[in-house]
Amino acid sequence: MRLADVAERLGATLDCPEQGDRPVLGVAPLETATATDISFLANPRYTALLQSTEAAAVFVRPDFQGEARCPLLRVPHPYLAFAKCIEWFYPQPKPAAKIHPTAILGTDVVLGAEVTIGAYTVIGDRVRIGDRTVIDSHCTLYDDVVVGADCRIYSHCALRERVRLGDRVILQNSVVLGSDGFGYVPLPDGRHYKIPQVGTVVIGNDVEIGAGTTIDRATLGETTIAQGTKIDNLTMVAHNCAIGENSILCAQVGLAGSTRIGNQVVLAGQVGVAGHLTIGDRTVVSAKSGISSSVPPDSRMGGIPAMDQALYLKASAALRQLPQLLKRVRKLEAKVGE
Amino acid sequence: MRLADVAERLGATLDCPEQGDRPVLGVAPLETATATDISFLANPRYTALLQSTEAAAVFVRPDFQGEARCPLLRVPHPYLAFAKCIEWFYPQPKPAAKIHPTAILGTDVVLGAEVTIGAYTVIGDRVRIGDRTVIDSHCTLYDDVVVGADCRIYSHCALRERVRLGDRVILQNSVVLGSDGFGYVPLPDGRHYKIPQVGTVVIGNDVEIGAGTTIDRATLGETTIAQGTKIDNLTMVAHNCAIGENSILCAQVGLAGSTRIGNQVVLAGQVGVAGHLTIGDRTVVSAKSGISSSVPPDSRMGGIPAMDQALYLKASAALRQLPQLLKRVRKLEAKVGE
Amino acid sequence: MRLADVAERLGATLDCPEQGDRPVLGVAPLETATATDISFLANPRYTALLQSTEAAAVFVRPDFQGEARCPLLRVPHPYLAFAKCIEWFYPQPKPAAKIHPTAILGTDVVLGAEVTIGAYTVIGDRVRIGDRTVIDSHCTLYDDVVVGADCRIYSHCALRERVRLGDRVILQNSVVLGSDGFGYVPLPDGRHYKIPQVGTVVIGNDVEIGAGTTIDRATLGETTIAQGTKIDNLTMVAHNCAIGENSILCAQVGLAGSTRIGNQVVLAGQVGVAGHLTIGDRTVVSAKSGISSSVPPDSRMGGIPAMDQALYLKASAALRQLPQLLKRVRKLEAKVGE
Repeated sequence: MRLADVAERLGATLDCPEQGDRPVLGVAPLETATATDISFLANPRYTALLQSTEAAAVFVRPDFQGEARCPLLRVPHPYLAFAKCIEWFYPQPKPAAKIHPTAILGTDVVLGAEVTIGAYTVIGDRVRIGDRTVIDSHCTLYDDVVVGADCRIYSHCALRERVRLGDRVILQNSVVLGSDGFGYVPLPDGRHYKIPQVGTVVIGNDVEIGAGTTIDRATLGETTIAQGTKIDNLTMVAHNCAIGENSILCAQVGLAGSTRIGNQVVLAGQVGVAGHLTIGDRTVVSAKSGISSSVPPDSRMGGIPAMDQALYLKASAALRQLPQLLKRVRKLEAKVGE
Repeated sequence: MRLADVAERLGATLDCPEQGDRPVLGVAPLETATATDISFLANPRYTALLQSTEAAAVFVRPDFQGEARCPLLRVPHPYLAFAKCIEWFYPQPKPAAKIHPTAILGTDVVLGAEVTIGAYTVIGDRVRIGDRTVIDSHCTLYDDVVVGADCRIYSHCALRERVRLGDRVILQNSVVLGSDGFGYVPLPDGRHYKIPQVGTVVIGNDVEIGAGTTIDRATLGETTIAQGTKIDNLTMVAHNCAIGENSILCAQVGLAGSTRIGNQVVLAGQVGVAGHLTIGDRTVVSAKSGISSSVPPDSRMGGIPAMDQALYLKASAALRQLPQLLKRVRKLEAKVGE
Repeated sequence: MRLADVAERLGATLDCPEQGDRPVLGVAPLETATATDISFLANPRYTALLQSTEAAAVFVRPDFQGEARCPLLRVPHPYLAFAKCIEWFYPQPKPAAKIHPTAILGTDVVLGAEVTIGAYTVIGDRVRIGDRTVIDSHCTLYDDVVVGADCRIYSHCALRERVRLGDRVILQNSVVLGSDGFGYVPLPDGRHYKIPQVGTVVIGNDVEIGAGTTIDRATLGETTIAQGTKIDNLTMVAHNCAIGENSILCAQVGLAGSTRIGNQVVLAGQVGVAGHLTIGDRTVVSAKSGISSSVPPDSRMGGIPAMDQALYLKASAALRQLPQLLKRVRKLEAKVGE
């Protein structure tokens, strides 16, 4: 592709049109881009790199003012332009639509058009799979699972009884959906009596779930992940949780049972949320925090137990001064005691 | 089932016997129950919901005093009654006892009566499996594994060499039992020399282990989980740990090597316990805490590093006042300095 | 083996040569060793056990001075001697080199000499596997994966497109290498646009990776783990991270994207490291800490957010006194106010 082609496809303005014939073969960050790579500047922190980058051209915002040693491509959303270039320059091979002869299909399975099922994958009875969905090797879909259209399910995923996925859902490898919730009745003699977990898990459109993540089925009813939400690796969503739309759960987050997460919430890595809470829309929780009570919309939270993020930052900074503070108070006491 | 039948099966007292013919078709929480659902009140916090619930009837304790808009079923353990109703109203289909033709069995495998083995499951040499145990698809049981009777092993579990399970053990999907412990000899040149992990893992009766959890084999000897203990998803139990009876390990807990956990201990979500410690019976550790020294029986612990839970709650509350405290001490110093 | 044979093979000095004919049949810790077991003393803390151990002999350092009730074997590295004895006395059976008839191999696969591939394992097109490597059942190697010589890959591992392993790499069960990085462009309407993750993962020689661990592929380029590094179970390494040589990542550690970890770094259990940071060589981070900024070589860090370990220990101790401190300051204020 030539630079002018890239500009045209993205509606970008090339600020030195005479360079339009320059070839573009790849995509790279500013630091490592070579003369045939395209790059981008989204974060002003990296503006200085425009002086040194070898890139063929760099996406910048329309109102960008700085200097650069290469042509600039002005677009409203440079980072999005960059993502689209990755799609074009590194197209992912789509497996040929076919059912591998070793795949095992139960009775009354309904497959859409152009479905791909990998080697040794096991599909239970009455499972329905939408058009163009690709399921890799070694997956198990239990009875009555429903998978929408254009989904991508990587190897070793387990979808338990009656789990339902919307369209364009991506499951990375080894995801478990619909394992039993962790529910027991404590008996007087110390034993724990298992409460049957007879609900299921329902995943909305455009959800992506990271490798090794587990989402437990509801005791009764449904554990739900609404459309557009993205969940990173090794995350735990307990039974009867409900996660809103377009939220982000980073790696190793853990939600206890029956917690409700709003829309566009961001839970950073290793955050834990106690059970039966409500986290309001657009709330952002910083990494490793522990949420122990419900939180209104638009909150910024941090710490264990979590507090307002601004207070948390001050308290964390103050904690470093605490050993000194003890000494200072001791001195004061000595003086005042006098 | 009629209300009178439910009462009779559970030995419950129905406080308005004239309603005994009312049909019961399902089970639901107080808030979402419909006119044919049975519900329960175990936590007094939800007593007010008895005024608004649509439920056909509600299980309460024998001495319950409040008002309700529906019949009450008095039983010693309402929550247990609820769990049993879930069993009756939503019976889980048991797979027909058969060995799937694609299952691979090694030499000298001993299968009990009515064993079920799913598609593509691989059973090593000299494995023994007890009566009525159900193993789903895509499991690997390495050589010399022993599984008791009435166990339920969901898909994608790996049971490494010589791992032994008792009876009625439940493994959710993707559990790994008997992976090598994390043990190395640090060499003077900075490299790490692997110590062979030649022990195994032994799991007692009635243990349940959550999806994606990993339990490492002992270096020498056994990593043990005693009967009745329940372990949630994505938990890590390191080599040579010994966990007592009827303990609860919530999701994403991590135990370092050679740690001993007593009976009826509760470790809440994301707790970490350092190696070579002893946690006494009935100890409860609050979520996200880090235990760095041994703890006597009946302790209540919280924080990182963990302290007594009551002190932890006070210290956490005080931490929020720390930024202000610094200012107050500065003021005091100024005054006293005068 | 006789005691004299063990001494000879390890270059150890047996301090009572007349006991050289004593038989050794096994290896055990000091507390549990029987009369035919060999044991070791590496940590002076356990010196007293030499008075009570039943062991046939104990490895000690050449300059060890204490008393013992059994023969001593003096070697420069007692712990290493112990590890080697475990190898000798408990040799792990190596599977016979064969490709199981149910293994599926793609086109243009190149297998070295004496490769073992287990039942139902699926190998993609153009995969290359080095000499004597053993791959267990239920693994999926996607297209263009490269595995070195003498590797050991346990069941249920997924190696995604183009992942490359060096020689003598060990993957415990259910490891995922090369899952998509967690990268999205936030759109103005709140949705998240997936950035294709077209890089890969490259693992150096002698790396071991624990059960259930996930290592994401780079967006562009490579996520790298350099030689000799050991990673424990359920750990998360995000896209574009680079981990140096001979480092140790304990269980449930999480690294956010593009972070660089030096050589011989130790991250204890459940540590989290934010993205785009650099952790200097030989740094040690204590369990459960959260690293939020880059750290120079040879640092000792602890806490959330992490600070110098010595300060962290003082601050943690001081935190327990904080509730009392608040009262003391209130008293001072009352006095000084007077």
